[in-house]
Formats: sequence, structure tokens, C-alpha cells
Amino acid sequence: MTATVGALAPISRAACVGGGVIGGGWIARFLLAGIDVKVFDPHPAAQRIVAEVLANAERAYGMLTGAPLPKRGRLTFCASVAEAVADAQWVQESVPERLDLKRRVLAEIDAGAPAEALIGSSTSGLKPSDLQAGLAHPGRLFVAHPYNPVYLLPLVEIVGGAATTPETIARAKAVLDAIGMKGVVIAREIEAFVGDRLLEALWREALWLIKDDICDVETLDDVIRYSFGLRWAQMGLFQTYRIAGGEAGMRHFLAQFGPCLQWPWTRLTDVVDLDDALVEKIGGQSDAQAAGLSIRELERIRDENLVGIVQALKAGQGGEGWGAGRLLKEFEQRLWAQAGGGAPAPDPTAPLELLEIRVSPAWIDYNGHMTEHRYLQVFGDTSDALLRLIGVDFAYVEAGHSYYTVETHLRHLGEARLGEALTCTTQVLAVDDKRLHLFHRLFAGPERREIATAEYMMLHVDSRAGRSAPAPEHVLAKLRAIADAHAKLETPAAVGRAIGQKTRLAAPV
Amino acid sequence: MTATVGALAPISRAACVGGGVIGGGWIARFLLAGIDVKVFDPHPAAQRIVAEVLANAERAYGMLTGAPLPKRGRLTFCASVAEAVADAQWVQESVPERLDLKRRVLAEIDAGAPAEALIGSSTSGLKPSDLQAGLAHPGRLFVAHPYNPVYLLPLVEIVGGAATTPETIARAKAVLDAIGMKGVVIAREIEAFVGDRLLEALWREALWLIKDDICDVETLDDVIRYSFGLRWAQMGLFQTYRIAGGEAGMRHFLAQFGPCLQWPWTRLTDVVDLDDALVEKIGGQSDAQAAGLSIRELERIRDENLVGIVQALKAGQGGEGWGAGRLLKEFEQRLWAQAGGGAPAPDPTAPLELLEIRVSPAWIDYNGHMTEHRYLQVFGDTSDALLRLIGVDFAYVEAGHSYYTVETHLRHLGEARLGEALTCTTQVLAVDDKRLHLFHRLFAGPERREIATAEYMMLHVDSRAGRSAPAPEHVLAKLRAIADAHAKLETPAAVGRAIGQKTRLAAPV
Repeated sequence: MTATVGALAPISRAACVGGGVIGGGWIARFLLAGIDVKVFDPHPAAQRIVAEVLANAERAYGMLTGAPLPKRGRLTFCASVAEAVADAQWVQESVPERLDLKRRVLAEIDAGAPAEALIGSSTSGLKPSDLQAGLAHPGRLFVAHPYNPVYLLPLVEIVGGAATTPETIARAKAVLDAIGMKGVVIAREIEAFVGDRLLEALWREALWLIKDDICDVETLDDVIRYSFGLRWAQMGLFQTYRIAGGEAGMRHFLAQFGPCLQWPWTRLTDVVDLDDALVEKIGGQSDAQAAGLSIRELERIRDENLVGIVQALKAGQGGEGWGAGRLLKEFEQRLWAQAGGGAPAPDPTAPLELLEIRVSPAWIDYNGHMTEHRYLQVFGDTSDALLRLIGVDFAYVEAGHSYYTVETHLRHLGEARLGEALTCTTQVLAVDDKRLHLFHRLFAGPERREIATAEYMMLHVDSRAGRSAPAPEHVLAKLRAIADAHAKLETPAAVGRAIGQKTRLAAPV
Repeated sequence: MTATVGALAPISRAACVGGGVIGGGWIARFLLAGIDVKVFDPHPAAQRIVAEVLANAERAYGMLTGAPLPKRGRLTFCASVAEAVADAQWVQESVPERLDLKRRVLAEIDAGAPAEALIGSSTSGLKPSDLQAGLAHPGRLFVAHPYNPVYLLPLVEIVGGAATTPETIARAKAVLDAIGMKGVVIAREIEAFVGDRLLEALWREALWLIKDDICDVETLDDVIRYSFGLRWAQMGLFQTYRIAGGEAGMRHFLAQFGPCLQWPWTRLTDVVDLDDALVEKIGGQSDAQAAGLSIRELERIRDENLVGIVQALKAGQGGEGWGAGRLLKEFEQRLWAQAGGGAPAPDPTAPLELLEIRVSPAWIDYNGHMTEHRYLQVFGDTSDALLRLIGVDFAYVEAGHSYYTVETHLRHLGEARLGEALTCTTQVLAVDDKRLHLFHRLFAGPERREIATAEYMMLHVDSRAGRSAPAPEHVLAKLRAIADAHAKLETPAAVGRAIGQKTRLAAPV
């Protein structure tokens, strides 16, 4: 459900100067976190580009999480920098990578923004000290360097310059963490910071390998994505090598690996000349690699894979979540907590609308339909949403009690396709001190086709003792209130039906 | 199920000289593909190390796929190189990274192995031409460079030297592809090939960033795993940048990015001195980053995450699979095809044992138990296994017909924990021309605790017309044979039961 809670962040108003692919990604992050955004970008196609990035972001977010996002912020395009930044609490600059241009724009922002506003630059390489030189309030200027696609990749490198105040860094990190991003503070400023320096090194070597015909671009990409790329989605360089070092760990690994540094295993001491011939060679090989997939198609595939990878990491470390997956898990827990707080009392005269989510790429089978068990996942998430509504939340489960499912009766009435919006409703059929009898209905698409139903019998348990136990009065009271209201609803015909009751066979035929 | 089919590969006998972490990974890959392996490694702890790697590999494989692996190959430790390689069809050398040592060992292998045997070296940097110099049969020597953990990361860089024959390269690739690995042929030999050159470049830059206190190792790792690491698990450098270039694609991106190559964005022109101080600095920071997790624990987390990531990619591109996920999907299809071919006729006097799998990390909820919908996933996979048994396989579905589930009745009787072995049995209750009535039982652990049951009603459909249709006689004949045999079995008490039938509540309470 899209609960109408307030903004997630310590801020509610942002401004984005520059709305390309990166600026558009920032705009999407802010809007989806419930923050109003004012945009200035003189580019004639700015509104179209931002709209496209925003559409991608909403599609991806919808597949990434079923947690209740706050009410989307208001998007306003402005005619000038001054107008865009006038009441902003955070201004994000994402103009082209030219020092003179950025300095001029940042001076305008500094002059027009409220004194307490934070000013972040998306620069991927320029030093914040160089950017803040000449500003009236340089202390609030910092680098906030994100990665494409900004709406899915959580990392933001936070880099302060000589004049940046510690409070600025602390406030910037707090805002980013609050909207589900990963603000990482870089201790000392340096050109290109950390991520792009690593990428730059790899990129230079890669260009040599292509130029010297050691391999083509597809082979080079395969080398990455079938090997260390799979490692790096979850652990970085040092943690991975710590493991490679075996029980002796990092020091042993370094002792082993050290000598190779002296070997001629790189051409990085030269800078490759990216001349027309090399550009054409790479361009041609890249066309062949794409095998007819358009940029839009590749973008969609990339985002769907990112969603699947992050969701897989969310299940990491025995359900605790790992890396980007744990970040998502913690973000969702805050979203649920907020929604619980701010959610309007559900209408008792109708089944509860407890879950809205889009069909995630990982849910599709080779027929192109939503896989059988994902129906049960959505129904299970809906039961969880009901439990949170009656006070059976993470803390309650932590404390040793919960409702467990003992029986489920699923009926498949239709199919759902990738990216389609799903809505699930719940009718409480009956309640006693231990048992909870539910009926879920799953609808797909704007026309709300009923594609499945699930009848549930749940039991309240003492999970430590491993046996059923009466639910506490404060939980039962909430449940009975809903059950009493739902008693006025018609009992669905499917309730109490056994498998194939209408179609029972004389066994065996 | 672990069907007793033959080896997957064009070979059935391999030898591994050197059984450390890398050699052990090769041994596991071969054994799990049904290939017998003879090992020579003078290291006193060799047998223990290989046993540990093999245990990790079997645990990971069990979680990675429910497809029927061939009967595990025979593992034999030998007292000499000559004994190990005497009847081998593939010899893999994985001794320490010293040219003189590798040359001596390879000469022994070359002298002792059958003339037609392939000889692969696991070297991560030495040129095959240098390795084959002086061999009696240099044409069969090539580099087969894998990545750690070898039993999960599919990539093998295949590199030939001056004397290596094209047939050697082709045969090597065929064997690797057959056992589910990704053999990538590098066009021209060069020290460190492709993957390690890229890693080397990144690694050198990383060492400078730590030495110069730009960041610590945990920050550097976070920069990787919260940003481009997530991209690289699915797409490499060039395909990713093609997308970043937008509609204009690769050439546009290069034009934009080219100039930066001249900027001072790297210290790679110097070689960092990995002195004791730097080793100690990195070692200490790495200890802090590990936060008390042992190498074994980190290894387990890494493998579980890899399983989850690859399974997510298997669902990529609308169920077609992407990258390492498509590789797994294609491998599983071959495994199913083989098992169908070589599987023994199931015992008709008992429920069919159609599925064996271990509880995957992605299946665990925050209680540490297997999540509700994963039960249905296992039951669904079991139904698929039955369908394949009666001829409803990929080709059959491609041709436009299939069985769809219309109703399911699940009962939860117990719980399963991470890594626990699951077995699922099927009893065919009834069959007619369109309908199929099944009862699955799920057992956990060596003691086979019954943890859930599922009653299924399936319908044979014409998937293009989108309606039910009679199944063809060749399918019905197979089904009836099983149904007739199962008619002699007792009908489970749970069959035909409605939800809460034994525990029905007067609704509402």
C-alpha cells in the first residue's frame, strides 16, 4: 500500500540543478522519499529526460520493495537557478564536468539558497576545495558522488573540501541514509575520489587489452561478469582477498601477492591514445555484443537484474541481509514503522487493502508468467502486513511470539505479467485466542483482474517453546474489531472448499 | 534426485596435480560432474584441504540447483605424478606460481600422461609459451585459469601458447562448457591474461588509496559493493558504459570520457612499496572490517550470496536467464535431459522420490526458518519433475501445451533450517484426460521429518489458446501406469480436507 506518511528524511524540500541521467536519478531518489523537488535545467529536452528516468525509477522501486513508500514529493521545473534553490534544504548540482561551469553554477546556487541549505555536487572527479573556492558560504559545499543508475545503486561518496564543516558532512550523511542510500565518507579529498579512481585504473588497462587485440569487448565483459563481478556484488577487494588468504588471512595474502606487483602485469604506465581507430573498434565490437538489444532494453534488463541481486542479498547471512540487501531490509523496516505510525485507520466495511507491489523479474518463469510460488509469497507478505497492523511486528517476533501458518488453500484464476501492478486484499473470517482464519484475494493490473485467492489458517505460537499459545489481549482486541466488521461481509464461496470439490474425480480413473 | 547417469563431459577421468584451494576447486568441479579424479599433492595437509573444499562445494551445489547431478566421480590420492596422470584424459596443474617449479611438474605430467590427454595449467599469470617450452608434446598444453571459489565462479580463461594446437583449445572449451563452467578463449597470450590484469590495475590503485589514507579498506570495499560491484555481477565494463552513453551509445560515451584519461586520476605510474608498515596497516584494517567473522564464516556467507545472486540472474531477462544465471539454467536443462534418459524406472509400489535439494540461503526468513512460499517452490519443482517424467518437458511446453496448477492445499507440519537436505515424494491420486490429482510429501533431514504436505489439482492446457485441452495419449498412458500402481497405496488422510476442517471455527467468534 502507498501509505500517506510524510517525508522520510530530515528534509522535505530539495533542488536539483542539472537534470540529465545523473540529475534525473537524484530527482527520482528525492521524490520517492517524499521530498518535493524544484529543478533547473536549460536543456530543451530536460523535462522528457527527467520523466524517463523517473519512470524507470518508479518501475524499479515497485519491483524492489512492497514496503509502503511515502507520498511522492512534488516535482516543479523552474526558470532559473535562483527560483529553484530559493527555499531548498538540499541543493544537488549535476551539470557537465567542467570546473569553470560548475564554479559559476555553484556561485549562483550559493547566492540564492537559504544560508542553512546543504549544497552537494555530483562531480565524479573535481576536488571540493576547487569547487568551493570563491563561494560566500564554502562550509556547506561538499561532493555527493552517486553511481548510475542513481535510483537503484545506493552508493554516494561524500567528500569534503578544505572549507567544508564537519556538521555539513554529518548532515549530508544523515539525509542520504534516511532515504535508503549509502553515504560513505571519504577521509581525504583527491581527484576522482575512490570509486572512479578504481574504475579509471581498470578502464585504462581494458583499453589497452582491446587496442592490442588480446580480446574483444564481449570477452572482456564476460571475464568480469562470470568471475570477480559476482564476488564484488557482495564483498569488495580486501574482504574477498582476506578469504583467499585462507586461515592466515590478509597478511598472508599480501605476502603471497606482493611480489607480483613488480611483475610487468600492466601497461598502465602508458596512457592509451583513444584515437578514432580505437573508438571505432570499440564501438563496432560493442554493437556486436549488444546483439540488437536497444539501450532501453539493456537498461531494463540491467535494472531487473539489479533488483534481483539486491533482493537475493536481502536474504543473505541467514536472513539478516548482507551489503546492499541489508541496507534495503533496514530501509523497509523504517518504511513499515512509519506507515504503521501514519497510516489511516483501514475501512472496516470492506476487505483490507494491505499490499501493493509490481511483478518482479525474479518472479517470472520460462512461460513469461508469474511463477506459482510467488503467488504464495505475495499472500504471505499480505498476512505479514495484517500482523503488523495488529501489533505483531519485528519487536513482537523478536520477543518470542508470532503467528505461524498451519494451512493454506490456493486457487489460481488467472496470470500476471512482468511489471504488472498487484493488489492484495484480506478478509478476516474468524478469530479465537489462538487461531486466525483469513481469506486473501489477489488482483492484477489497473482493471483489477482477480488472479488468485488464498484461504489461511494461522496459529499464535510461543516460538521459543515451539508450541501454540493464546495471543495477548491487545492483539486479540485489534483482531476482533476487524473480524466483527468483516462479519457483515459475504463469506467467499471458496471458503471451506476442499481441493477439486467441484471437480472431484473417482480415484483412480 | 541424484539420478545415476554417467559423466556429463566428453571425459570421465581427470588428474589434478596440486590440491590447494584452487586445485581443490577443480577436483570438486570434476567429481560433481561425474568425472573420476586422481590427485597428487605432496603437502601433508592436502587430503584435509581437498576434503574441506569438496564439502563447501557440495553444500553450495546442493543449494544452487535441484537438478539431478550425475553420480559423483571417484576420488583417489596418488603417491606420484606419474601414477595420478597415467590414464587421465585431462590433467590440471595447480602448483605454486613459480616458472621453474611449474616447468618441472609439467614435464613430469607430459611424460606420464597418455598422448591424447589435455594438460591445463591454473597459472594466473605465466605465459603458456613459457610453460610449454621443453615439453615433448607442447601442443596439448594450455592455460585454464579459474577464479576462487572455483566450484561456484564459472569463468575459466583458456589461453594457448605458440605451440598449442587449435584442437586443444576447442576440446578444452567443450569439456569446460559440458561441466557447467564458462570457458572463455583469450585471443593472444599476455602475462596475467585479461582478468588478473584488470584486477592488478585496480589492486595497485587500491593500495595507494590505503597507503595515502584517502580511505580505509572497509570504505574502499563498500565503495565497490554498493555501486559498480552490483553492476558487474551481470554486465561488464563496456556493456555498462554503452548504457551510460545513452541512446548515442558507446562512441558517445568514449567521446565524453576520453579526455579524462589525460587527467591525473591515477597513481598507477608508480609501484607502491608493499612494506611491513603497509602490510600491517591493511592487515589491521581488514581485521576490523571482518568484525569477528572467521574466514570459514566469511567463506560461507560469500558462497550463500553467490548462490543467491546466480539464482536471481537465472530469472533474468524475463525468465530466459542472464549471464551466470543463464549458464546455470542451460546446465540444469542438460542435467534434466540426461536424467530423463538415464533414470531408472521408478518403483511403482511407493510414492515417487522426485526431488532432493538443500535449503538455500535465499529461502530463510528472519526467524532462521525456511520461508512459507519456498515450501511451494519445492512442491512446484516436484510437480515439474513428475511432468518431465511423463514427457511434459521443455520441448513439450515450447510446443504449446502444459499442465497448469489450478488448486493447492498446503499443510505445514514442521520447519527446515539452512542447508538441510529436503526430499519430496509424489503420489498420483487420480488422472483423467484433462485433470491430474497429486499429493506431495516434504521430508527434512537425514531422519526424514515430515514437514509439509501439498495436495495438487492440475489441468492440461493449450497455453496458446489459453484454455484446458485433453492431454495426448502418450502422456496419459505414462500417467495411468503410475496412477494404477499408486491406487494400491493408502490415500493420505489429508486428501480432500478443507482448511481447518478439523479445527473449524464458528465464524465469527
